Amino acid sequence: MDMEGCLVPEIWIRLAAQTGIEKLKVTTREIKDYDELMQYRLGVLNELGIGMAQLREAIASIAPLDGALEYVNWVRERFPFIILSDTFYEFADPLMAQLGRPTLFCHRLEIDETDRIAGYHLRTVDGKAQAVRGFQANGFRVISIGDSYNDVTMLKQAEQGILFHAPDNVIAEFPQFPSCTNYAELQAEILKAA
Amino acid sequence: MDMEGCLVPEIWIRLAAQTGIEKLKVTTREIKDYDELMQYRLGVLNELGIGMAQLREAIASIAPLDGALEYVNWVRERFPFIILSDTFYEFADPLMAQLGRPTLFCHRLEIDETDRIAGYHLRTVDGKAQAVRGFQANGFRVISIGDSYNDVTMLKQAEQGILFHAPDNVIAEFPQFPSCTNYAELQAEILKAA
Repeated sequence: MDMEGCLVPEIWIRLAAQTGIEKLKVTTREIKDYDELMQYRLGVLNELGIGMAQLREAIASIAPLDGALEYVNWVRERFPFIILSDTFYEFADPLMAQLGRPTLFCHRLEIDETDRIAGYHLRTVDGKAQAVRGFQANGFRVISIGDSYNDVTMLKQAEQGILFHAPDNVIAEFPQFPSCTNYAELQAEILKAA
Repeated sequence: MDMEGCLVPEIWIRLAAQTGIEKLKVTTREIKDYDELMQYRLGVLNELGIGMAQLREAIASIAPLDGALEYVNWVRERFPFIILSDTFYEFADPLMAQLGRPTLFCHRLEIDETDRIAGYHLRTVDGKAQAVRGFQANGFRVISIGDSYNDVTMLKQAEQGILFHAPDNVIAEFPQFPSCTNYAELQAEILKAA
Protein backbone atom coordinates (compact mmCIF):
# COMPACT_ATOMS: atom_id res chain seq x y z
CA MET A 1 0.00 0.00 0.00
CA ASP A 2 1.09 3.52 -0.80
CA MET A 3 1.64 5.83 2.18
CA GLU A 4 1.15 9.52 1.34
CA GLY A 5 -2.46 10.35 0.52
CA CYS A 6 -3.52 6.84 1.59
CA LEU A 7 -2.42 6.61 5.25
CA VAL A 8 -0.82 9.98 6.02
CA PRO A 9 -1.07 13.45 4.44
CA GLU A 10 1.24 14.46 1.58
CA ILE A 11 4.39 15.24 3.56
CA TRP A 12 5.91 17.93 1.30
CA ILE A 13 2.59 19.80 1.09
CA ARG A 14 2.39 19.79 4.88
CA LEU A 15 6.03 20.87 5.15
CA ALA A 16 5.27 23.75 2.78
CA ALA A 17 2.30 24.79 4.90
CA GLN A 18 4.15 24.51 8.21
CA THR A 19 7.33 26.24 7.10
CA GLY A 20 5.49 28.79 4.96
CA ILE A 21 7.80 28.03 2.02
CA GLU A 22 5.61 28.36 -1.08
CA LYS A 23 8.24 26.77 -3.33
CA LEU A 24 7.84 23.44 -1.49
CA LYS A 25 4.25 23.15 -2.72
CA VAL A 26 5.46 21.90 -6.08
CA THR A 27 4.59 18.22 -6.59
CA THR A 28 4.79 15.56 -9.32
CA ARG A 29 1.83 17.31 -10.91
CA GLU A 30 4.08 20.26 -11.80
CA ILE A 31 7.44 18.46 -12.15
CA LYS A 32 6.81 14.95 -13.46
CA ASP A 33 10.39 13.67 -13.12
CA TYR A 34 10.96 12.53 -9.54
CA ASP A 35 14.71 13.16 -9.55
CA GLU A 36 14.24 16.67 -10.96
CA LEU A 37 11.56 17.37 -8.35
CA MET A 38 13.71 16.12 -5.47
CA GLN A 39 16.76 18.11 -6.61
CA TYR A 40 14.52 21.18 -6.77
CA ARG A 41 13.17 20.56 -3.24
CA LEU A 42 16.61 19.95 -1.76
CA GLY A 43 17.88 23.07 -3.52
CA VAL A 44 15.10 25.13 -1.91
CA LEU A 45 15.87 23.73 1.56
CA ASN A 46 19.60 24.27 1.24
CA GLU A 47 19.15 27.79 -0.14
CA LEU A 48 17.09 28.68 2.94
CA GLY A 49 19.48 26.88 5.28
CA ILE A 50 16.79 24.44 6.50
CA GLY A 51 18.31 21.26 7.93
CA MET A 52 16.92 17.97 9.17
CA ALA A 53 16.32 19.18 12.76
CA GLN A 54 13.86 21.81 11.54
CA LEU A 55 12.17 19.36 9.16
CA ARG A 56 11.91 16.73 11.88
CA GLU A 57 10.14 19.23 14.09
CA ALA A 58 7.66 20.09 11.33
CA ILE A 59 7.07 16.41 10.53
CA ALA A 60 6.57 15.49 14.20
CA SER A 61 3.37 17.56 14.21
CA ILE A 62 1.83 15.60 11.28
CA ALA A 63 -0.66 12.88 12.23
CA PRO A 64 -1.84 9.91 10.16
CA LEU A 65 -5.22 10.29 8.42
CA ASP A 66 -8.33 9.72 10.54
CA GLY A 67 -8.95 5.99 10.85
CA ALA A 68 -5.58 5.02 9.34
CA LEU A 69 -4.26 3.38 12.52
CA GLU A 70 -7.40 1.28 12.97
CA TYR A 71 -7.30 0.31 9.31
CA VAL A 72 -3.60 -0.65 9.46
CA ASN A 73 -4.25 -2.77 12.57
CA TRP A 74 -7.15 -4.47 10.79
CA VAL A 75 -4.99 -5.34 7.76
CA ARG A 76 -2.09 -6.58 9.88
CA GLU A 77 -4.35 -9.03 11.68
CA ARG A 78 -5.24 -10.58 8.33
CA PHE A 79 -2.40 -10.22 5.80
CA PRO A 80 1.35 -9.57 5.56
CA PHE A 81 1.33 -5.79 5.09
CA ILE A 82 4.05 -3.68 3.47
CA ILE A 83 3.96 0.05 2.81
CA LEU A 84 5.65 1.05 -0.45
CA SER A 85 6.46 4.73 -0.64
CA ASP A 86 8.63 7.24 -2.48
CA THR A 87 9.23 9.09 0.78
CA PHE A 88 12.36 8.78 2.95
CA TYR A 89 12.82 6.83 6.16
CA GLU A 90 14.02 10.02 7.84
CA PHE A 91 10.70 11.74 7.06
CA ALA A 92 8.39 8.79 7.58
CA ASP A 93 9.76 7.64 10.92
CA PRO A 94 7.50 9.68 13.27
CA LEU A 95 4.47 8.71 11.18
CA MET A 96 5.39 5.03 11.23
CA ALA A 97 5.71 5.24 15.01
CA GLN A 98 2.14 6.58 15.17
CA LEU A 99 0.93 3.73 12.95
CA GLY A 100 2.49 1.02 15.16
CA ARG A 101 5.57 0.60 12.92
CA PRO A 102 4.27 -1.40 9.97
CA THR A 103 7.04 -2.44 7.55
CA LEU A 104 7.99 0.35 5.16
CA PHE A 105 10.03 0.11 1.95
CA CYS A 106 11.13 3.58 0.78
CA HIS A 107 14.25 5.66 0.08
CA ARG A 108 16.80 7.29 2.30
CA LEU A 109 18.32 10.73 2.67
CA GLU A 110 21.95 11.58 3.02
CA ILE A 111 22.37 13.99 5.92
CA ASP A 112 25.79 15.62 6.23
CA GLU A 113 27.58 16.55 9.46
CA THR A 114 26.08 20.07 9.39
CA ASP A 115 22.53 18.55 9.42
CA ARG A 116 22.02 19.59 5.80
CA ILE A 117 20.30 17.20 3.37
CA ALA A 118 23.17 16.53 1.00
CA GLY A 119 21.27 14.16 -1.27
CA TYR A 120 19.14 11.05 -1.40
CA HIS A 121 19.44 7.39 -2.34
CA LEU A 122 16.67 5.67 -4.25
CA ARG A 123 16.28 2.08 -3.09
CA THR A 124 15.69 0.99 -6.66
CA VAL A 125 14.14 2.22 -9.91
CA ASP A 126 10.34 1.76 -10.19
CA GLY A 127 10.55 0.49 -6.62
CA LYS A 128 6.86 -0.09 -6.04
CA ALA A 129 6.21 -2.39 -9.02
CA GLN A 130 9.58 -4.06 -8.43
CA ALA A 131 8.61 -4.81 -4.83
CA VAL A 132 5.33 -6.37 -5.99
CA ARG A 133 7.25 -8.54 -8.46
CA GLY A 134 9.52 -9.59 -5.60
CA PHE A 135 6.56 -10.67 -3.45
CA GLN A 136 5.08 -12.59 -6.37
CA ALA A 137 8.39 -14.36 -6.99
CA ASN A 138 8.10 -15.38 -3.34
CA GLY A 139 4.75 -17.07 -3.82
CA PHE A 140 2.45 -14.23 -2.77
CA ARG A 141 -0.58 -13.00 -4.62
CA VAL A 142 -0.61 -9.24 -4.13
CA ILE A 143 -3.26 -6.59 -3.55
CA SER A 144 -1.80 -3.13 -4.31
CA ILE A 145 -3.45 0.05 -3.08
CA GLY A 146 -2.56 3.58 -4.16
CA ASP A 147 -3.89 6.99 -5.06
CA SER A 148 -1.87 8.43 -7.91
CA TYR A 149 0.04 8.03 -11.17
CA ASN A 150 3.20 6.84 -9.48
CA ASP A 151 1.23 3.90 -8.05
CA VAL A 152 -0.16 2.70 -11.37
CA THR A 153 2.70 0.34 -12.25
CA MET A 154 2.35 -1.46 -8.89
CA LEU A 155 -1.45 -1.56 -9.28
CA LYS A 156 -1.05 -3.13 -12.72
CA GLN A 157 1.60 -5.58 -11.52
CA ALA A 158 -0.55 -6.84 -8.62
CA GLU A 159 -3.15 -9.59 -8.87
CA GLN A 160 -5.60 -6.85 -7.79
CA GLY A 161 -5.02 -3.09 -7.86
CA ILE A 162 -7.28 -0.79 -5.85
CA LEU A 163 -7.45 3.01 -6.07
CA PHE A 164 -7.89 4.77 -2.74
CA HIS A 165 -8.42 8.52 -2.31
CA ALA A 166 -7.53 8.92 -6.00
CA PRO A 167 -8.31 12.16 -7.83
CA ASP A 168 -11.07 12.04 -10.46
CA ASN A 169 -8.70 12.10 -13.44
CA VAL A 170 -6.83 9.01 -12.20
CA ILE A 171 -10.11 7.18 -11.53
CA ALA A 172 -11.34 8.08 -15.03
CA GLU A 173 -8.10 7.03 -16.71
CA PHE A 174 -7.88 3.63 -14.98
CA PRO A 175 -11.42 2.23 -14.87
CA GLN A 176 -10.02 -1.31 -14.49
CA PHE A 177 -9.26 -0.62 -10.81
CA PRO A 178 -12.05 -0.40 -8.22
CA SER A 179 -11.95 2.95 -6.43
CA CYS A 180 -12.65 3.58 -2.73
CA THR A 181 -12.94 6.79 -0.76
CA ASN A 182 -12.95 5.53 2.85
CA TYR A 183 -11.37 2.71 4.86
CA ALA A 184 -14.62 0.75 5.28
CA GLU A 185 -15.05 0.55 1.50
CA LEU A 186 -11.38 -0.35 1.14
CA GLN A 187 -11.66 -3.19 3.66
CA ALA A 188 -14.65 -4.59 1.76
CA GLU A 189 -12.70 -4.36 -1.51
CA ILE A 190 -9.68 -6.12 0.06
CA LEU A 191 -11.82 -8.98 1.39
CA LYS A 192 -13.49 -9.31 -2.03
CA ALA A 193 -10.11 -9.54 -3.76
CA ALA A 194 -8.68 -11.95 -1.16
CA MET B 1 14.95 -13.13 10.88
CA ASP B 2 13.86 -16.64 11.70
CA MET B 3 11.03 -16.99 14.23
CA GLU B 4 11.10 -20.31 16.15
CA GLY B 5 14.10 -20.59 18.44
CA CYS B 6 14.98 -16.94 17.78
CA LEU B 7 11.90 -15.00 18.91
CA VAL B 8 9.48 -17.64 20.18
CA PRO B 9 9.86 -21.24 21.39
CA GLU B 10 9.75 -24.15 18.95
CA ILE B 11 5.99 -24.41 18.44
CA TRP B 12 5.71 -28.15 17.73
CA ILE B 13 7.86 -29.00 20.76
CA ARG B 14 5.58 -26.86 22.93
CA LEU B 15 2.50 -28.42 21.35
CA ALA B 16 3.92 -31.87 22.13
CA ALA B 17 4.50 -30.84 25.75
CA GLN B 18 1.10 -29.23 26.20
CA THR B 19 -0.93 -31.95 24.52
CA GLY B 20 1.22 -34.75 25.95
CA ILE B 21 1.57 -36.28 22.48
CA GLU B 22 5.08 -37.76 22.38
CA LYS B 23 4.94 -38.31 18.61
CA LEU B 24 4.82 -34.53 18.01
CA LYS B 25 8.31 -34.16 19.49
CA VAL B 26 9.83 -35.29 16.21
CA THR B 27 11.65 -32.41 14.47
CA THR B 28 13.83 -31.81 11.39
CA ARG B 29 16.64 -33.41 13.38
CA GLU B 30 14.86 -36.77 13.08
CA ILE B 31 13.03 -36.30 9.77
CA LYS B 32 15.12 -34.06 7.54
CA ASP B 33 12.56 -33.68 4.74
CA TYR B 34 10.11 -30.92 5.66
CA ASP B 35 7.22 -32.30 3.63
CA GLU B 36 7.66 -35.76 5.10
CA LEU B 37 7.82 -34.29 8.62
CA MET B 38 4.68 -32.19 8.12
CA GLN B 39 2.72 -35.13 6.65
CA TYR B 40 3.77 -37.16 9.69
CA ARG B 41 2.66 -34.42 12.11
CA LEU B 42 -0.69 -33.90 10.38
CA GLY B 43 -1.20 -37.68 10.35
CA VAL B 44 -0.64 -37.80 14.11
CA LEU B 45 -3.10 -34.94 14.73
CA ASN B 46 -5.77 -36.40 12.47
CA GLU B 47 -5.34 -39.88 13.95
CA LEU B 48 -6.01 -38.43 17.42
CA GLY B 49 -8.85 -36.22 16.16
CA ILE B 50 -7.09 -33.02 17.20
CA GLY B 51 -8.40 -30.02 15.25
CA MET B 52 -7.42 -26.38 14.99
CA ALA B 53 -9.52 -25.23 17.96
CA GLN B 54 -7.54 -27.44 20.33
CA LEU B 55 -4.23 -26.42 18.77
CA ARG B 56 -5.16 -22.74 18.95
CA GLU B 57 -5.84 -23.13 22.66
CA ALA B 58 -2.45 -24.75 23.21
CA ILE B 59 -0.68 -22.11 21.13
CA ALA B 60 -2.43 -19.24 22.92
CA SER B 61 -0.55 -20.15 26.10
CA ILE B 62 2.87 -19.85 24.42
CA ALA B 63 4.73 -16.58 25.03
CA PRO B 64 7.61 -15.07 23.03
CA LEU B 65 11.12 -15.56 24.44
CA ASP B 66 12.19 -13.22 27.24
CA GLY B 67 13.29 -9.92 25.75
CA ALA B 68 11.99 -10.74 22.26
CA LEU B 69 9.36 -7.96 22.22
CA GLU B 70 11.86 -5.31 23.30
CA TYR B 71 14.34 -6.59 20.72
CA VAL B 72 11.74 -6.58 17.93
CA ASN B 73 10.72 -3.01 18.83
CA TRP B 74 14.37 -1.97 18.78
CA VAL B 75 14.90 -3.43 15.30
CA ARG B 76 11.69 -1.94 13.91
CA GLU B 77 12.77 1.55 14.96
CA ARG B 78 15.92 1.15 12.87
CA PHE B 79 15.35 -1.20 9.91
CA PRO B 80 12.60 -2.71 7.75
CA PHE B 81 12.06 -6.00 9.59
CA ILE B 82 10.60 -9.20 8.16
CA ILE B 83 10.24 -12.54 9.92
CA LEU B 84 10.84 -15.53 7.63
CA SER B 85 9.53 -18.77 9.05
CA ASP B 86 8.53 -22.29 8.06
CA THR B 87 5.60 -22.12 10.44
CA PHE B 88 1.98 -21.38 9.45
CA TYR B 89 0.04 -18.14 9.81
CA GLU B 90 -2.64 -20.06 11.72
CA PHE B 91 -0.09 -21.11 14.37
CA ALA B 92 1.95 -17.92 14.48
CA ASP B 93 -0.94 -15.48 14.79
CA PRO B 94 -1.21 -15.29 18.61
CA LEU B 95 2.57 -14.99 18.88
CA MET B 96 2.70 -12.22 16.28
CA ALA B 97 0.01 -10.37 18.24
CA GLN B 98 2.22 -10.55 21.34
CA LEU B 99 5.18 -9.21 19.34
CA GLY B 100 3.24 -6.18 18.04
CA ARG B 101 2.50 -7.76 14.66
CA PRO B 102 5.78 -7.51 12.79
CA THR B 103 5.52 -8.62 9.14
CA LEU B 104 5.71 -12.40 8.78
CA PHE B 105 6.29 -14.44 5.62
CA CYS B 106 5.45 -18.12 6.22
CA HIS B 107 3.13 -20.88 4.99
CA ARG B 108 -0.56 -21.56 5.47
CA LEU B 109 -2.68 -24.45 6.60
CA GLU B 110 -5.76 -25.77 4.94
CA ILE B 111 -8.47 -26.22 7.57
CA ASP B 112 -11.55 -28.15 6.47
CA GLU B 113 -15.14 -27.52 7.58
CA THR B 114 -14.78 -30.05 10.43
CA ASP B 115 -11.84 -28.00 11.87
CA ARG B 116 -9.41 -30.71 10.80
CA ILE B 117 -6.04 -29.72 9.28
CA ALA B 118 -6.49 -31.15 5.80
CA GLY B 119 -3.10 -30.05 4.48
CA TYR B 120 -0.76 -27.14 4.05
CA HIS B 121 0.43 -24.79 1.34
CA LEU B 122 4.09 -23.82 1.11
CA ARG B 123 4.45 -20.20 0.01
CA THR B 124 7.39 -21.17 -2.15
CA VAL B 125 10.32 -23.59 -2.23
CA ASP B 126 13.40 -22.50 -0.22
CA GLY B 127 11.28 -19.57 0.86
CA LYS B 128 13.76 -17.96 3.21
CA ALA B 129 16.65 -17.60 0.75
CA GLN B 130 14.18 -16.70 -2.00
CA ALA B 131 12.78 -13.89 0.15
CA VAL B 132 16.29 -12.54 0.75
CA ARG B 133 16.93 -12.59 -3.01
CA GLY B 134 13.68 -10.68 -3.49
CA PHE B 135 14.73 -7.96 -1.04
CA GLN B 136 18.13 -7.70 -2.72
CA ALA B 137 16.48 -7.38 -6.15
CA ASN B 138 14.61 -4.47 -4.55
CA GLY B 139 17.76 -2.63 -3.61
CA PHE B 140 18.14 -3.80 -0.03
CA ARG B 141 21.26 -5.11 1.60
CA VAL B 142 20.12 -7.86 3.95
CA ILE B 143 21.11 -9.05 7.41
CA SER B 144 19.73 -12.59 7.98
CA ILE B 145 19.45 -14.08 11.45
CA GLY B 146 18.67 -17.71 12.24
CA ASP B 147 19.45 -20.64 14.50
CA SER B 148 19.45 -23.82 12.46
CA TYR B 149 20.22 -25.73 9.26
CA ASN B 150 17.07 -24.57 7.51
CA ASP B 151 18.28 -20.97 7.91
CA VAL B 152 21.69 -21.52 6.35
CA THR B 153 20.69 -20.78 2.74
CA MET B 154 19.23 -17.40 3.79
CA LEU B 155 22.29 -16.66 5.93
CA LYS B 156 24.53 -17.39 2.96
CA GLN B 157 22.38 -15.36 0.58
CA ALA B 158 22.40 -12.28 2.82
CA GLU B 159 25.10 -9.60 2.83
CA GLN B 160 25.58 -10.64 6.46
CA GLY B 161 24.36 -13.82 8.13
CA ILE B 162 24.22 -14.07 11.92
CA LEU B 163 23.63 -17.19 14.01
CA PHE B 164 21.44 -16.66 17.06
CA HIS B 165 20.70 -19.32 19.70
CA ALA B 166 22.30 -21.87 17.37
CA PRO B 167 23.30 -25.32 18.66
CA ASP B 168 27.03 -26.03 18.91
CA ASN B 169 27.18 -28.26 15.84
CA VAL B 170 25.72 -25.52 13.62
CA ILE B 171 28.13 -22.94 15.06
CA ALA B 172 31.04 -25.30 14.44
CA GLU B 173 29.96 -26.13 10.90
CA PHE B 174 29.48 -22.50 9.81
CA PRO B 175 32.33 -20.50 11.37
CA GLN B 176 31.88 -17.77 8.72
CA PHE B 177 28.81 -16.48 10.61
CA PRO B 178 29.16 -14.58 13.90
CA SER B 179 27.19 -16.31 16.64
CA CYS B 180 25.21 -14.62 19.44
CA THR B 181 23.42 -16.04 22.45
CA ASN B 182 21.44 -13.04 23.70
CA TYR B 183 19.63 -10.03 22.24
CA ALA B 184 22.21 -7.47 23.45
CA GLU B 185 24.97 -9.31 21.57
CA LEU B 186 22.70 -9.62 18.54
CA GLN B 187 21.94 -5.89 18.50
CA ALA B 188 25.66 -5.12 18.61
CA GLU B 189 26.26 -7.55 15.73
CA ILE B 190 23.44 -5.98 13.70
CA LEU B 191 24.83 -2.46 14.19
CA LYS B 192 28.28 -3.68 13.22
CA ALA B 193 26.95 -5.24 10.01
CA ALA B 194 24.80 -2.22 9.17
